[in-house]
Order: sequence, then structure tokens, then C-alpha cells
Amino acid sequence: MRRSVFFISDGTGITAETLGRSLLAQFDHVEFEEQTIPYVDSPEKAWDAVRSIDAAACDEGRPIVIDTIVNSELRQIISKSKAFKLDVFEAFVGQLEGELSTASSRAVGTSHSMDSQPDYAARIDAVHFALDNDDGARTRHYDRADLILIGVSRSGKTPTSLYMALQFGVHVANYPLTEDDFEESELPAALRPFKKKLFGLTIEPGRLAIIRRERKPDGRYANLAQCESEIRAARSIYVRENIPFLDSTHLSIEEISTRILATVGLKRRLA
Amino acid sequence: MRRSVFFISDGTGITAETLGRSLLAQFDHVEFEEQTIPYVDSPEKAWDAVRSIDAAACDEGRPIVIDTIVNSELRQIISKSKAFKLDVFEAFVGQLEGELSTASSRAVGTSHSMDSQPDYAARIDAVHFALDNDDGARTRHYDRADLILIGVSRSGKTPTSLYMALQFGVHVANYPLTEDDFEESELPAALRPFKKKLFGLTIEPGRLAIIRRERKPDGRYANLAQCESEIRAARSIYVRENIPFLDSTHLSIEEISTRILATVGLKRRLA
Repeated sequence: MRRSVFFISDGTGITAETLGRSLLAQFDHVEFEEQTIPYVDSPEKAWDAVRSIDAAACDEGRPIVIDTIVNSELRQIISKSKAFKLDVFEAFVGQLEGELSTASSRAVGTSHSMDSQPDYAARIDAVHFALDNDDGARTRHYDRADLILIGVSRSGKTPTSLYMALQFGVHVANYPLTEDDFEESELPAALRPFKKKLFGLTIEPGRLAIIRRERKPDGRYANLAQCESEIRAARSIYVRENIPFLDSTHLSIEEISTRILATVGLKRRLA
Repeated sequence: MRRSVFFISDGTGITAETLGRSLLAQFDHVEFEEQTIPYVDSPEKAWDAVRSIDAAACDEGRPIVIDTIVNSELRQIISKSKAFKLDVFEAFVGQLEGELSTASSRAVGTSHSMDSQPDYAARIDAVHFALDNDDGARTRHYDRADLILIGVSRSGKTPTSLYMALQFGVHVANYPLTEDDFEESELPAALRPFKKKLFGLTIEPGRLAIIRRERKPDGRYANLAQCESEIRAARSIYVRENIPFLDSTHLSIEEISTRILATVGLKRRLA
């Protein structure tokens, strides 16, 4: 079973995509062909979208449209397509207007807009913090870190620290645990003063070997026994030092990041 | 006017937050105090959430709850709070079941889940591509780039390339335009073979000076006249070489990224 799906927005399309994908994930035996049409902010563009939608109708059923357009004139144009349409603003904005006893501004796409300059600056600052303090390259700014991720090479530290910086504006450093660290009976010197900021990542050895093989196919680095030994050593540091940790194997970057925030009770820096 | 808002989810909370913030942005004269409660996946956690919600009721009105929990038993517990509740799954999943003539799986939080391993690998690969090819550090992999962002220092290239990697899985390199490049009458040698992949960023000089001052307060780098001159020179390269470009000043990273995708017609690599 197959259906075309269109995420239609007058802004970035991120809300329509995020909500739409959550809903469609509930129908895992249907194969959805997704397309996002962002920045539909004029009648011409709305009619273009209608043509694209109608061209996607097929024997297996009409297209599905998830629409977050704010302007009612443009929404009405989209309604003229042959699609089955979920109208997000119609479903919820009226209810909120009632609850708040006030009219909505009906303004386009303000949620991802960044005329909130302090937030923008905080985000950029967090991204550069993550980059400057990636992979143990520098350890002298750990006093400014909200969190220091530790784990063996390719356990997910870098993507997680960048995601947390971009989405939550938190300052996340990361430090790779290597064989030198495993031979010691205490934490690496750079980490010792910041024990409360540490969070460990672990991963299944088989999965790690596959990821490492993509990067460096030959040598000990991607060898399964090597991966097993490093992971076991890292895990015993977490247990010995009482450091909270998480297995990243079956989690997305979003899940790893939000679970860490929830576990350590870290506040987001972005509004 | 002030209201507490809770984004409640059995997964990451990202869908509830994204949708909720879009809706609340329509009410810009209300001050919302937002809180996300993710991973509400047991009756105990649902009751904990109810207690948090009810504790936030105040004279100015009951709390607002945006709820994306899939499990109906847990949703019913949340309903027992004194909040005004927007129930996302109730609003839409039933409609979709009718349209698709099939029952939903009622499974938790699958949309951000990454047991889709090829997607996970593509994302990680894209993040490492962005890092390895950041700031002109390396130019020999430009043949593998989907896009090469160019612009003066701190015009937004790095955060944009990382966001595009994480969200869309595309391979984005970035190259800083410096005074050496401005003195030449043609494109920098490293960029010349890849002209079709180039996209320029520009920014208002006053804003750039503020951003640069945060990084290096002294010297020519953050000087307004210097910023003006660099931006003028970069822009004239874009015009001379017919390179598409965008002013990032009033845009969020999401907006910059999605506008670039839309402008160059680049396909996402993630499903």
C-alpha cells in the first residue's frame, strides 16, 4: 500500500514535517512518498502546490496533505486539490483562541524565526563551543561546559553534542576514552575536576565495528575484539566512577539527546 | 498575560514542542512558560506529569497541555489534570485511519526512532563530512559535496552546514571568503571546478560586527568598516559569478537551511 504525502507550509515546513511524520509512523504497513513544499506564501505558489498534489493522485488513493499554512485564503486554495487534508491551524488555533480569549495574530511562520537575537547568538555560541571542544581537542574550557560526553571513538559523541548545541543551546564538550585512559585506575586528569558534568555513551560492539569499518576498513580500529574490549573498559569506568550512561545503539540522535537532558535534569538555554 | 504550557510526550517530545511552539507563536501578546515532559511511558510518570501540570495553575488561567502521547490509557490520565488540553493524536489519527481504511499501530514515538540504520549512518556520515570540510580546512573532497557554502567569516556557514547535515543528511562543505580571494578577478582555485555547487551567504555589516566582537573584541576583525568592506566584496563575487545567495541576518538556521534547499532544488538524503 502506497500513498503520496505533502507537507505544505508558508514557512520552513518543519512543523508540518515533524507532526506529519509522527502521525504517519503510526501506519507502518503503508509506504508513504513524502514531499515538502515550504514557503507557500502567495496564491501563485498555492496553485502550484495544488497542481503538484493533484499530479500525485494514483489508483491506490488520493494524496494526503498535512497543511500548516496560517493564511486562510491560501489554505482555501490548497483545499481545492483532490487530496485528503489535515489542516493543523484550523484544528487547533480556534480552540486556543477560545481558551486564551484572544484572537491569534495569524502571522506566518514565526516559530522558527530568529528576530529573537539573543537566542540566535546563544545557539551559534553553543555550536562553536561544541566544535572547539570536540574530541578532547581542548580541555581548558570544561569549566564553561554544561555537559561533557565521554565514550570510545564513534560511539556518537560528536553528532550528539552538535545536535544538543543546535536544538537546545547547551554547551557540550566531548572527550574520547582511549587505551591510555583504560590503563589508569582513576579518571583522566582533564576530567577529574568535572566529574558531575560527565555523561557516558556506550554502544553494542557489533554496531561499533560496522561504523568504524566505514571510516577505516583496515587495522585494529574496526576489529570486533578491539571494539568489545574498549567498550567493556569504558563501561567499567562509568560503573566505577558512578557516571550516568546510555546505550546509543538503537537510538536516534534526537533520542540520545533528549534522554541525556532528562537524565541529568539539564535546562535548555533556548526559549 | 501569562500561561504555563506543557509539551507532553511518550517519546522525545520533539513533535509536541515543534507543533506547540508554532501554535503559540500565533499569540505573541501572551507570555508562555514552556516545559517539556518527555518519555511519559507509564501510569506513574503520567500521574507525575498531572501533578506538575496542576501545580502550575495560577490566577491568570489554567495550564495548556499539548499532548502527543499515543497510548490512550496514559492520555486519559493526563486528561485528569486541570489543564486545557490539545490532544494531537486524537485530533488526527482517527481521521487518518478512516482515510487509509486501516488501524494505526498505536506504537510509541517511532518517528524519531532510528532502527532505520541506513538513515542513521547517512546522518553521521553527513555530520562528519561537514566537520572535515569546515572552513576551507580541506578542499579535496569537494567532488563529494552536495553543496559548498561560501561567505565571510561568521556569516553563518558552519551552523548552517551542520544543521543541514543533521536534519537532511546532505553533504555540505563550507569555504570562507577572505581578503586574498577578494583581490582576485576569478573564483578561488579550489572552488572553480565546483561552481554549480556554490551558495553564498551574506549578512548586514552591523550584525556581523556584533557577532565578531563576541569572538575577538579587538582589532580589525570586528571593525564595522572592515565588515562592510568584506561583505561588499563577497557580494560582488556572488553577482559577478552568478552564484545564488541569501541574507542570513534576520533568518534562523532552520530558515537559512530550508531556503537554500528550496532555492537549489537539492534533495534530502534522509527518508
